[in-house]
Amino acid sequence: MRIILCGFGVVGQSLVKLLNSRSDDLYAKYGLKPRIIAVSDSKGSAVDTAGLSLEKLIEVKKKFGTIKNYGNIKNNMSGIDLIKNIDADVMIETTASNYKDAEPGMSHIITAMKRKMHVISVNKGPLALAFPSLVELATYNQVIFKFSGTVGGGTPILDYAKNSLRGERIMSFSGILNGTTNYILTNMTNGSSFDIALKDAKDKGYVEADESLDLDGLDAAAKLVILANWVMDMKVTLPDIDCKGIRNVTTEDIKKAIKNNCSIKLIASCDKELKVQPRQVSIDDPLCVNGTLNAIAFTSEHSGTQTIIGKGAGGIETASSILRDLLEIRQEIAKI
Amino acid sequence: MRIILCGFGVVGQSLVKLLNSRSDDLYAKYGLKPRIIAVSDSKGSAVDTAGLSLEKLIEVKKKFGTIKNYGNIKNNMSGIDLIKNIDADVMIETTASNYKDAEPGMSHIITAMKRKMHVISVNKGPLALAFPSLVELATYNQVIFKFSGTVGGGTPILDYAKNSLRGERIMSFSGILNGTTNYILTNMTNGSSFDIALKDAKDKGYVEADESLDLDGLDAAAKLVILANWVMDMKVTLPDIDCKGIRNVTTEDIKKAIKNNCSIKLIASCDKELKVQPRQVSIDDPLCVNGTLNAIAFTSEHSGTQTIIGKGAGGIETASSILRDLLEIRQEIAKI
Repeated sequence: MRIILCGFGVVGQSLVKLLNSRSDDLYAKYGLKPRIIAVSDSKGSAVDTAGLSLEKLIEVKKKFGTIKNYGNIKNNMSGIDLIKNIDADVMIETTASNYKDAEPGMSHIITAMKRKMHVISVNKGPLALAFPSLVELATYNQVIFKFSGTVGGGTPILDYAKNSLRGERIMSFSGILNGTTNYILTNMTNGSSFDIALKDAKDKGYVEADESLDLDGLDAAAKLVILANWVMDMKVTLPDIDCKGIRNVTTEDIKKAIKNNCSIKLIASCDKELKVQPRQVSIDDPLCVNGTLNAIAFTSEHSGTQTIIGKGAGGIETASSILRDLLEIRQEIAKI
Repeated sequence: MRIILCGFGVVGQSLVKLLNSRSDDLYAKYGLKPRIIAVSDSKGSAVDTAGLSLEKLIEVKKKFGTIKNYGNIKNNMSGIDLIKNIDADVMIETTASNYKDAEPGMSHIITAMKRKMHVISVNKGPLALAFPSLVELATYNQVIFKFSGTVGGGTPILDYAKNSLRGERIMSFSGILNGTTNYILTNMTNGSSFDIALKDAKDKGYVEADESLDLDGLDAAAKLVILANWVMDMKVTLPDIDCKGIRNVTTEDIKKAIKNNCSIKLIASCDKELKVQPRQVSIDDPLCVNGTLNAIAFTSEHSGTQTIIGKGAGGIETASSILRDLLEIRQEIAKI
């Protein structure tokens, strides 16, 4: 399986390490032989249609900060150049999310689909801005489009809702979908001020380079868009979400919540409306998890409410979700 | 799809109601047209190879306490008679669990498999005593064997571990698998004595007719057997479980736990050993759920620890898991 990998940050590198450490067992157990033939980062590219060395990719990135120095000639190609000029089976998009124009991820995905590549995206931007049309484009081009890592990191929330609850009608759901704001709110519940809690989260590396993505609820809203489309068959994009972040949560609000045996959590919910907003959640509610944990509660017609809790992010966790998507693509292709 | 339904208690009746209420949408959405052609309860049977009336089954059971009075001639057949004499595609086993000889469920399942019927069991007894050999028998006879409802009621725990975490290695798991004992322990944590908490649970109808199944941990141990076989590929049965129930949990133990910011929970765990025993669980642990809730935490190699929480029992919830199994059988058959 020939793979183009766009973006080589924490997730991309974790994926390469994971594939490297599991290559034998993936082939023996699933018949999967992934061959990464091109990688791009913001500074350049590495290409070898016979398959790049996974160890060398990691080494070069570590040493030079870019895979441009991998040692091949075509080291100046951008992600989009790679996709346009190299034949591959799967394009994996791991560049950073942005919610303005979702570039370069959006062009990567659209071009790859038009070139009949299957696409795995852990970049939420393109999905938040254009989920319905990207799914349509994938269908039109008869390619598989997977994005398990966009919600819940390594916790297979999308798959659970779609497959494990197959035959059930999910009526509504609500969840804590952003670990960073949950960490900040947890610290505030434990007595910190907003500023100190934010600084602590920044020191720990939990906050996105553009802090607004976390604090103003954009990251949670993007995940809500993906869930609403995927789980509830809604055709919505980011502007359809009524979104309020945590910047205005005061120590007073926190204290009031504690009096009610509650904690304030940034809840993304899909009921009649699609909302992201800080809410009081009873501490007895399974949804009320602390620290950087994510949690989501699906209410189904007959099986009651079911809550899934897990780490919502992390390089290796997200890489493991990409691997699951690869396995599923492998399986789907084998059927044809 | 012709179905023989063995056992017509709460779960069996809930299933019939569920199929009745969803018949149109099941056909439209999944191509599933279930036809129940025979039902047995402890007093007799109802048979109509053209398909029994679902409304009438419910009415007759309500009025007479048995489906024997359904109005057909063959009303004296036992479950095993039905399986031996009537051709069907699927046998659904919903008689009560027992952990001595697992009868009549064990004979129902074995006979149905030999007669090339696919089998869905929500009866834990046969699985607890003979999981490895039943799976082998199913493989040998080329029939599908499903048992989603045995663990977690409507919460698709088995499916989650097997499918949603596909491509992952689950290293260990632990969980609260019995809602009744969790209810009793929760009440004790809130100040009740064991006797009062047990009486309350009995009044609410949470306790099995044979209370030992709950209190001595047998129900939890049976579920642990099923999980260990299914999720971890172990070949174990009930005698392999080191099992201790909650009868010896004292008010002192509870108080000690509270001092440690913990609650006492009956934890079924699979690590190096297979154990059911009361343990202190930190109240900050997502596993520490209260009331009749069930919870299970899977620790995987790369995706971290993931906890699923849901109602562990209930007629309609368990019926919904049977429906999921039926849909999967339908899908598998369609492939061939």
